[in-house]
Amino acid sequence: MYRSHTCGELRESHIGQSVTLAGWVQKVRDKGFVVWIDLRDRYGITQLVFDQERTSVELLQQAREAGREFVLQVTGEVIERASKNPKIPTGGIEVLATGLQVLNPSLTPPFTIEDQTDGGEELRMKYRYLDIRRNPVKEKLIFRSRVAMEVRKYLSAQGFIEIETPYLIKSTPEGARDFVVPSRMNEGQFYALPQSPQTFKQLLMVGGMDKYFQIVKCFRDEDLRADRQPEFTQIDCEMAFVEQEDILNAFGGLTLHLLETICGVHLESIPRMTYDEALRRYGSDKPDIRFGMEFGELNEVAQHRDFSVFNQAQLVVGLAVPGGNRFTRKEIDTLTEWVKRPQVGAKGLVYVRCNEDGAFKSSVDKFYDQQDLALWAARTGAQKGDLILVLSGEVDSTRAQLSMLRMKLAEELGLRNPSEFAPLWVVDFPLLEFDPESGRYHAMHHPFTAPKPGQMALLDTDPAAVRANAYDLVLNGNEIGGGSIRIHDRPTQETMFRHLGFTAEQARQQFGFLMDAFQYGAPPHGGIAFGLDRLVAILGGQESIRDFIAFPKNNSGRDVMIDAPAPIAQEQLDELHLRLKE
Amino acid sequence: MYRSHTCGELRESHIGQSVTLAGWVQKVRDKGFVVWIDLRDRYGITQLVFDQERTSVELLQQAREAGREFVLQVTGEVIERASKNPKIPTGGIEVLATGLQVLNPSLTPPFTIEDQTDGGEELRMKYRYLDIRRNPVKEKLIFRSRVAMEVRKYLSAQGFIEIETPYLIKSTPEGARDFVVPSRMNEGQFYALPQSPQTFKQLLMVGGMDKYFQIVKCFRDEDLRADRQPEFTQIDCEMAFVEQEDILNAFGGLTLHLLETICGVHLESIPRMTYDEALRRYGSDKPDIRFGMEFGELNEVAQHRDFSVFNQAQLVVGLAVPGGNRFTRKEIDTLTEWVKRPQVGAKGLVYVRCNEDGAFKSSVDKFYDQQDLALWAARTGAQKGDLILVLSGEVDSTRAQLSMLRMKLAEELGLRNPSEFAPLWVVDFPLLEFDPESGRYHAMHHPFTAPKPGQMALLDTDPAAVRANAYDLVLNGNEIGGGSIRIHDRPTQETMFRHLGFTAEQARQQFGFLMDAFQYGAPPHGGIAFGLDRLVAILGGQESIRDFIAFPKNNSGRDVMIDAPAPIAQEQLDELHLRLKE
Repeated sequence: MYRSHTCGELRESHIGQSVTLAGWVQKVRDKGFVVWIDLRDRYGITQLVFDQERTSVELLQQAREAGREFVLQVTGEVIERASKNPKIPTGGIEVLATGLQVLNPSLTPPFTIEDQTDGGEELRMKYRYLDIRRNPVKEKLIFRSRVAMEVRKYLSAQGFIEIETPYLIKSTPEGARDFVVPSRMNEGQFYALPQSPQTFKQLLMVGGMDKYFQIVKCFRDEDLRADRQPEFTQIDCEMAFVEQEDILNAFGGLTLHLLETICGVHLESIPRMTYDEALRRYGSDKPDIRFGMEFGELNEVAQHRDFSVFNQAQLVVGLAVPGGNRFTRKEIDTLTEWVKRPQVGAKGLVYVRCNEDGAFKSSVDKFYDQQDLALWAARTGAQKGDLILVLSGEVDSTRAQLSMLRMKLAEELGLRNPSEFAPLWVVDFPLLEFDPESGRYHAMHHPFTAPKPGQMALLDTDPAAVRANAYDLVLNGNEIGGGSIRIHDRPTQETMFRHLGFTAEQARQQFGFLMDAFQYGAPPHGGIAFGLDRLVAILGGQESIRDFIAFPKNNSGRDVMIDAPAPIAQEQLDELHLRLKE
Repeated sequence: MYRSHTCGELRESHIGQSVTLAGWVQKVRDKGFVVWIDLRDRYGITQLVFDQERTSVELLQQAREAGREFVLQVTGEVIERASKNPKIPTGGIEVLATGLQVLNPSLTPPFTIEDQTDGGEELRMKYRYLDIRRNPVKEKLIFRSRVAMEVRKYLSAQGFIEIETPYLIKSTPEGARDFVVPSRMNEGQFYALPQSPQTFKQLLMVGGMDKYFQIVKCFRDEDLRADRQPEFTQIDCEMAFVEQEDILNAFGGLTLHLLETICGVHLESIPRMTYDEALRRYGSDKPDIRFGMEFGELNEVAQHRDFSVFNQAQLVVGLAVPGGNRFTRKEIDTLTEWVKRPQVGAKGLVYVRCNEDGAFKSSVDKFYDQQDLALWAARTGAQKGDLILVLSGEVDSTRAQLSMLRMKLAEELGLRNPSEFAPLWVVDFPLLEFDPESGRYHAMHHPFTAPKPGQMALLDTDPAAVRANAYDLVLNGNEIGGGSIRIHDRPTQETMFRHLGFTAEQARQQFGFLMDAFQYGAPPHGGIAFGLDRLVAILGGQESIRDFIAFPKNNSGRDVMIDAPAPIAQEQLDELHLRLKE
């Protein structure tokens, strides 16, 4: 063993002991007659001291020559520190060195290994192994492992069995694109990497393993957006002989347990809201309910005047910004510009100032009187001193726009407190959603989701109206999990595939094994999957997942550290019976 | 919830309670006036009873019509059983049904869902979801999850952090073949699936995460042998600031913990043996030491006569079969035929019977006298009543042949007791092994293994003699883990690549990131990886890994249940910039 103690371990109780430490040079301070080295490892920093009086000339010189990030092994005696540093746990002591060995020298690192580094994102990713030495990254990785372990302990204690499903499966082009893996032994054939273990976990239910979970990598070959990774980790779960209520209880329990053990936050239960209500009240199916600013629908109180913009709108909807009356005209103009950006897409923004004296001052005073505006205030819950902001247009897009505005304002007003946690079940999702591009309905969750009992017939007459026992778990405005009660009989699954545009042949070819399985006594079942990367980030009070992943890929799907993907040898291609297209 | 209790839960203490069960029909016994159904779920079997006196006509009829593997929900009252079945935990009670709902009917399953099934391997794999309902398979999957959880708990308690490394990495054609994944966004480029997270775990050590582990899938595109899977699971581990001794202690500790908690076997420590000694004494680097039959080298006592076969051999080596003198001539002939099969490859088999009266009777009595044979007995440890079997030829192949014979005999003699556990560290492996096919040396473990201190110079003069701090953990004759102390400086790693036949350019292109990392303060480090599939099988007292994997592939790398690999759509190929070779 290269060390007797770690660099985070020594205290005043160790004074007088002879110790050996190993770690990295954080800092060397050379005062001529005395040299201090801060030695760092995963566990902390310990100060080493070398001085003219007590240290040999050679050793003192060695200490002087140690550069940043050198790996040292140092032997010495724990002594009391003259000027203690109460900010670090080892601040009461230092180690008077009696021996020093350079285990490995280091080039000057390309960025500083400090909590606040001078390295940009790209440099940090290229030298990720150095980035990981920094506390903020290191701690996020350790935090992630704690969360994963806590999930496993909790679910195991509840009787769930972790079962590994295969990674080399079959391509099923429904949904996102698959990554595929050419088979050398089966010419012209390919495996696919799983987008999720969905069908396998359902087969496990058919197999009687009534409580399954797995923390598992999944893969999606999508055009990457910021903070999306081509490979990501799911907490994948499924239960048999359950109804929606059982799933919400089981995994609400998991969520509350994590909040308690990981974040120290005790909550009694998780509120629920239907999809329709979430859209109506927050314009989003993943509302952040840590703060108010709920939507007020204004059609009834805003379409009776000569303001044609509102009169022609499907929806007129507003919200009250608490204390927003203090916004300057310029600030409101900036907000107006913001909602008109193509990424948001509103046509304009109507505002109503709620003065302290109870009077209203709006951008549409030409059309609406004080009585009208008082009704708007009532509908949006605006108080004196607030600012009402109103958008109008087509229902779905207007809600989405106002939701974006709501989130932006909350961010700016400091209402999104990262140490406050507000989980929410959103339930009763639509079964299908219309895709204007392909001109047909897609499964909103996935093709295995069951319509609510009794709603099968609606599929033929009003597909958009069919609801499912499908649910999302939302935490602080982020979807951290989603699932559904599944179809468990062949006829329903066949009907569903037909409605999703599969021919009978396509359905059989891609999912024949699942429909076969449903004929041999498939139990009623349902489940959920959590996005671990996102869950961990939010529990850690962060919005970005990047630093909770040890070796993330960039937005082009590249690992810039190892430089992958990369060309392969011609003989590899030959063995795989493939050619590159010119 | 579809049930109030599981089918394994009810006892005499529940008598009088009203319960609801859900599960599969194991068996229906129809006596006309009374019908019994055995209802099964993951937890056990409960007997349901329907009879003319206490059950409605309709219900009795429903019970009669329930087929094997139907999924039922049954409500009823727990009553005392007239004739109790002490063989099952629920055997004291039965449930007098008052209601029955068929949750899903079932076709007749293609094989019986019994501990001993009538289904062949292929059928079982095609309908794996039914196979999993069988106790032996179900229990193996649950056993596997227990082992994995115990590993995680133990290593976490020891300060190890589980860190997920990426699955989409870069192809490095050293070693086995990679599975590759074409990149859509980077035309003509490919990711590779990891054969192990080796370089990433080393980078984590460079990153200061000094105790890492991960239970992780790995991939090798090899021509499959029996009981090999293209995807398999490793317990992958690495530590920094350690020497070999520390690794052996840490993971010996894990192994002893698993034996204790999983198998209920307490062992104080794990013996060690060098690679050279293991080959000399057992002819194998993974000896099964649950039994003796150690090798006796006979060159000195068998090459002084006129028996040219022995005189021309590099090695004459034998072992004593305990009680083998009872073997008939025919049995010995069968053994002789067995060692001459091409899979073993020996030229012949010499035997010596050790009679109860102390006399010897051998197949080479023409050449050797009683005194000679007494010396053979002494060298092989043969006692009266034993049989000495002797092979001769080139050292390595002869040892391998005798090792195969030893294992076969032990199997037949019942010496390989599956509930006895004999772990063994084999240490001091050679760094390199010569590959006659390519005419050059390969890394025996992998190219990152460090030669023993002071042996670098030997690389130029006698490469085969260089030893490494490389070690295997052997359990009952199976390698369950292997690892080494790694190179942690750039010059040594460059030298190693050169000796393995890499050009400087190849080394830089494939492993430049690792050698770069070594320049920024890489700590001394080392690690180990366990094959989880094998480990679990052996802890479970089995030799085959197949049933410890939920959805295994067959020997052609196919998943016969989902029928993968399979052709993909032309548009998928187009997007990936690929063409199939005609």
